[in-house]
Amino acid sequence: MNKIPSNIMALASNTSNKRETVCIFGTGDFGRALGHKLIQCGYPVVFGSRSTQTSSLIPKDAEVLSHAEAAQKAAIIIIAIQRQHYNFLAPLAENLHGKVLVDISNNLKINQYPESNAEYLAQIVPGAKIVKAFNTVSAWALQSGTLDASRQVFVCGNDMEAKQMVMDIVRALGLTPLDQGSLLAAQEIENYPLKLFPMWKFPILLSLGLTTFFFFYCLIRDVIYPYIYENKDFSFFIAISIPNRICPILALILLALVYLPGVLAAIIQLYRGTKYRRFPDWLDKWMLCRKQLGLVALAFASLHVVYTLVIPIRSFVRWRIISYTVSQALNNKTEPLDTTNAWLSDSYLALGILGFFFFVLLGITSLPSVSNNVNWREFRFVQSKLGYLTLVLCTAHTLVYGGKWFLSPSSYRWYLPNAYMLSLIVPCIVLVVKFVLIFPCLDKPLMQIRQGWERNPQYSS
Amino acid sequence: MNKIPSNIMALASNTSNKRETVCIFGTGDFGRALGHKLIQCGYPVVFGSRSTQTSSLIPKDAEVLSHAEAAQKAAIIIIAIQRQHYNFLAPLAENLHGKVLVDISNNLKINQYPESNAEYLAQIVPGAKIVKAFNTVSAWALQSGTLDASRQVFVCGNDMEAKQMVMDIVRALGLTPLDQGSLLAAQEIENYPLKLFPMWKFPILLSLGLTTFFFFYCLIRDVIYPYIYENKDFSFFIAISIPNRICPILALILLALVYLPGVLAAIIQLYRGTKYRRFPDWLDKWMLCRKQLGLVALAFASLHVVYTLVIPIRSFVRWRIISYTVSQALNNKTEPLDTTNAWLSDSYLALGILGFFFFVLLGITSLPSVSNNVNWREFRFVQSKLGYLTLVLCTAHTLVYGGKWFLSPSSYRWYLPNAYMLSLIVPCIVLVVKFVLIFPCLDKPLMQIRQGWERNPQYSS
Amino acid sequence: MNKIPSNIMALASNTSNKRETVCIFGTGDFGRALGHKLIQCGYPVVFGSRSTQTSSLIPKDAEVLSHAEAAQKAAIIIIAIQRQHYNFLAPLAENLHGKVLVDISNNLKINQYPESNAEYLAQIVPGAKIVKAFNTVSAWALQSGTLDASRQVFVCGNDMEAKQMVMDIVRALGLTPLDQGSLLAAQEIENYPLKLFPMWKFPILLSLGLTTFFFFYCLIRDVIYPYIYENKDFSFFIAISIPNRICPILALILLALVYLPGVLAAIIQLYRGTKYRRFPDWLDKWMLCRKQLGLVALAFASLHVVYTLVIPIRSFVRWRIISYTVSQALNNKTEPLDTTNAWLSDSYLALGILGFFFFVLLGITSLPSVSNNVNWREFRFVQSKLGYLTLVLCTAHTLVYGGKWFLSPSSYRWYLPNAYMLSLIVPCIVLVVKFVLIFPCLDKPLMQIRQGWERNPQYSS
Repeated sequence: MNKIPSNIMALASNTSNKRETVCIFGTGDFGRALGHKLIQCGYPVVFGSRSTQTSSLIPKDAEVLSHAEAAQKAAIIIIAIQRQHYNFLAPLAENLHGKVLVDISNNLKINQYPESNAEYLAQIVPGAKIVKAFNTVSAWALQSGTLDASRQVFVCGNDMEAKQMVMDIVRALGLTPLDQGSLLAAQEIENYPLKLFPMWKFPILLSLGLTTFFFFYCLIRDVIYPYIYENKDFSFFIAISIPNRICPILALILLALVYLPGVLAAIIQLYRGTKYRRFPDWLDKWMLCRKQLGLVALAFASLHVVYTLVIPIRSFVRWRIISYTVSQALNNKTEPLDTTNAWLSDSYLALGILGFFFFVLLGITSLPSVSNNVNWREFRFVQSKLGYLTLVLCTAHTLVYGGKWFLSPSSYRWYLPNAYMLSLIVPCIVLVVKFVLIFPCLDKPLMQIRQGWERNPQYSS
Repeated sequence: MNKIPSNIMALASNTSNKRETVCIFGTGDFGRALGHKLIQCGYPVVFGSRSTQTSSLIPKDAEVLSHAEAAQKAAIIIIAIQRQHYNFLAPLAENLHGKVLVDISNNLKINQYPESNAEYLAQIVPGAKIVKAFNTVSAWALQSGTLDASRQVFVCGNDMEAKQMVMDIVRALGLTPLDQGSLLAAQEIENYPLKLFPMWKFPILLSLGLTTFFFFYCLIRDVIYPYIYENKDFSFFIAISIPNRICPILALILLALVYLPGVLAAIIQLYRGTKYRRFPDWLDKWMLCRKQLGLVALAFASLHVVYTLVIPIRSFVRWRIISYTVSQALNNKTEPLDTTNAWLSDSYLALGILGFFFFVLLGITSLPSVSNNVNWREFRFVQSKLGYLTLVLCTAHTLVYGGKWFLSPSSYRWYLPNAYMLSLIVPCIVLVVKFVLIFPCLDKPLMQIRQGWERNPQYSS
Repeated sequence: MNKIPSNIMALASNTSNKRETVCIFGTGDFGRALGHKLIQCGYPVVFGSRSTQTSSLIPKDAEVLSHAEAAQKAAIIIIAIQRQHYNFLAPLAENLHGKVLVDISNNLKINQYPESNAEYLAQIVPGAKIVKAFNTVSAWALQSGTLDASRQVFVCGNDMEAKQMVMDIVRALGLTPLDQGSLLAAQEIENYPLKLFPMWKFPILLSLGLTTFFFFYCLIRDVIYPYIYENKDFSFFIAISIPNRICPILALILLALVYLPGVLAAIIQLYRGTKYRRFPDWLDKWMLCRKQLGLVALAFASLHVVYTLVIPIRSFVRWRIISYTVSQALNNKTEPLDTTNAWLSDSYLALGILGFFFFVLLGITSLPSVSNNVNWREFRFVQSKLGYLTLVLCTAHTLVYGGKWFLSPSSYRWYLPNAYMLSLIVPCIVLVVKFVLIFPCLDKPLMQIRQGWERNPQYSS
């Protein structure tokens, strides 16, 4: 956050004046919204329009002139026109010479045109100083003042002074300008507002798929099986018991999948004997969404914690404990304390609590503002040391939880093992391979490779 | 965070030297604190003072000269004097010509003077380059080195080079300069340190009011009523039971109040047929504090979760369950499992857990560092889609929780309905109206209006 | 976060071209990694190397020339060579005149050399414009594209234009340049990547020490004592019961230690009658790590909360309640509700919940992105008002929890008091001293001292 916090600004405008005139070409929605806002913030605004009669839509205090006349009145011209109509600017090139043209346009698709709109504009009006800005702000938000979302406005351009002038306007509107460098950045800036969580797609689809699979798996084992063989109606397990089985399973599998690509990369590098060849594409993409995978895993782990803590309040659990107590009282017997059982129960809970604790720590350090305050050495310490510790603790939690049932035949229903057994496969593989990779005979060459050493330098070029 | 993390810097100063001399006018508290710090960071410091004899208060290594002499020694002069005494600079105008004057003053009230102190200084010494800076840092923090709070120093000024020079000093002191643009921003910068959570006032006052009302409401129903009619002392309900009734009620009402203004705005726009007229003032203000309302609601929801999870540990609850079990054992009966009850209990818990989960997600995305990493499209997706999902889940949670009691006469005491019934009014209204607004016959014109279409363009100007 | 979110960039490069040639001196690991990345982002790259035959290691599309030839081809030269070999640049001084030299070197120890590597480079090649950059990025991360950690690149240098050119390259690589001012900042920038949580060392070591002490203390009282005198095996207490005793104790002590230095500082200032003398070194260091102490305390408090909520699920606790219920049923008696007990139990839970709630609030406001959005007045309000409120609530929670046992002789085993009694010493001292300091006769002079007043000004200079 590089700005005086937001909402305050939105109310406190109107106070300052003495601003320089700004010209806006185009009287469409965004042009008008921007004009309104600029006038509110004390800027004299001139609209450039083909016909000067559509004035009823335009803010009262703004002048409406022809394009050529309007351009003369201001040093900064905001082009609030769609890219398809940029051609009409070509004949105006003389009027626009030396002016700062602000390209605020967006496209409908990512990489819709070979060059960015701003670069296209620079080709059409070569004498002007093009600055890309404002495209990440919605007209509706600008209009209603409800800029709760990001107030960041990416700005790029080749002329430093022009960029500064535009950034001053951005600041005056209560927004935060972020210099993104030269006009070459325009393509990226134009693609930015079109994205919808691109890095989250794979983790979320994967977890949806796994959730569906494990839901039906547990439904068969825990609801349908007892209904058929014991004629018991446990359909209400769908609300809490089954989700509380799926959540820890997904948390564990996804957490293991965060560390699997790193292990695979190490194997590939050891095999190739160099770090200077690119990984296969799927591995590259997998590595880039590890953070998102981890956060989805954390979400499932958190749900698991709440579902577990809620257990003693559930009316079914209360009923079960009360019936058990009553039956003991009626049978006139008191069971002695089973210390082994107490050990098992307490230690799987303790392992789970510690695992969750470190998992949350990992989550907090992945907050942008925290990870920005951490250097590379610290980040690696947290993400790899603490990360593996979390994985070990969570795997141990699951192992101790299910320990007693592993070999019991009653835990197989229709030959289906308990779901948590399936969840142990990936984490155990990751931990075993990682354990092998720690051995000096493998760790040393790997370190050398990562420091730039190559086994067969002659082949690598 | 645009700086090498903080505390490290504070210890590691003294290392560098070769700095340019800085002159400070005024030997008051802030002047001296700044002088100390500048000397620590290797800057030669000259104080300009009316009398050069108050030297005992001044850092040892600093020179104290008359204003005119001191001004000659440095290119940058920090004006550590109150605005009322700026007049004395007028006769020095010649000595100050071309110098960078840093205005660090603050006022006692918001918008105390028509123009900012920095602009006033610029009028008095027109030949100097005025830069506003340092006013957001406390002298005490500067002195003690305990800058745990924000290290951000807002800087503004019309001369780019002067601003750069001041920003370099700011950086050298271990602080983070933030360019706020031209001197017009000075007013806002001077108001900034005077504010005390202005956006939080309404949500906090509202929730305090509602809390008080519901506290006495529940006190009457749950403590006074049973005391009078059944002579039972449930006064200890004040500690947990009643707070755990108030918290979910407030969370639900406040969450609904986050979405109510959006719904009202839609109705107003549909009625007016344009988006280009301002909303009434109260609606504008309400919309600007929606984020804060939501976060207060989240705080209440979190308290509700902890209060609920703590239930089985409460000695009262343990006593109640044990007595019930003992009475069952003594009566020699075991109740069978009531599946409907198990369904109801599990599903209201599950709805609550999911509602809370999405609520926390909303809270995390409203962290500044997260919302800055999200574009407008993603932000709208999260805040409106996930937001309404949360509201639906939480309302359903409350409905299922109380479902069985709605029509039972025993739930009315002194004709007062259960408190949670009152809490359902606002969310149900919001959800019903929102549901109506989704219908195409209303949604389509609304979309058009928000894209700039106007029903009666001739009237709008 | 000042950049278009990260990972997207890493995939979307290659699109732009027309970049200016960059020259890299040195074909070591970092040089090659940087070369690879620059080529990927569309920069023509020329390597300067002693022998032009090691070309097999070098990216295919890069040219390899002698140093002098390579330098001629580009305006920017990245010096990917270790400081010890900088001497070889002296004879090239003429070729490097007016060029931008980017120093990317790191050292092995903090403050290894009297001057920074960048300043040393400036001495060797006085005609060049030296810019420090890229040293905070790891070659491995650059190579693999997995820059999940901080993407911040600290940049400093005396020439504004040179700095801008380097910052544009940084941006083009998908990283975030942060201007740190003049070349004097280079020392700090070079030390930065060598640090490993320097501020966390003391809090973590302290809490490890205290944890060990209290672990054995509780082990003796709760496991060994009953084993010897009652021959009961409570060894499973190690998993949950003992941690759940240690965590709240440490949370309370560490929280009190956050506020102790402030209280000590006030006493010292009152005694000395001035704020302008430095505190003893240990107090300075203690004050600088208060935030970290508080966060460690919060971690222990969170663990305590989860350990406590898990209680009713523990098999030992279930066994104990069931046996108790059964024994009551067998003895045919039902105990009436003990209202005092219900009050005590509910109120210590309520105090704990509220204390934890405010503690979490404090933790959230200490997130960098939140504390940056808060001015000094708001920060002091939160950290001191809410902080003391938290301390009071947590101390009261502990007092009410143990209230009934304080004077009971059965709570002393081997003359050892219950561990929580020890934990009350520091917080009670802090609260009592703070309470005394609030009295006007002490508060007024303290305020005056903190506003710059001195009791004996003649002695202070």
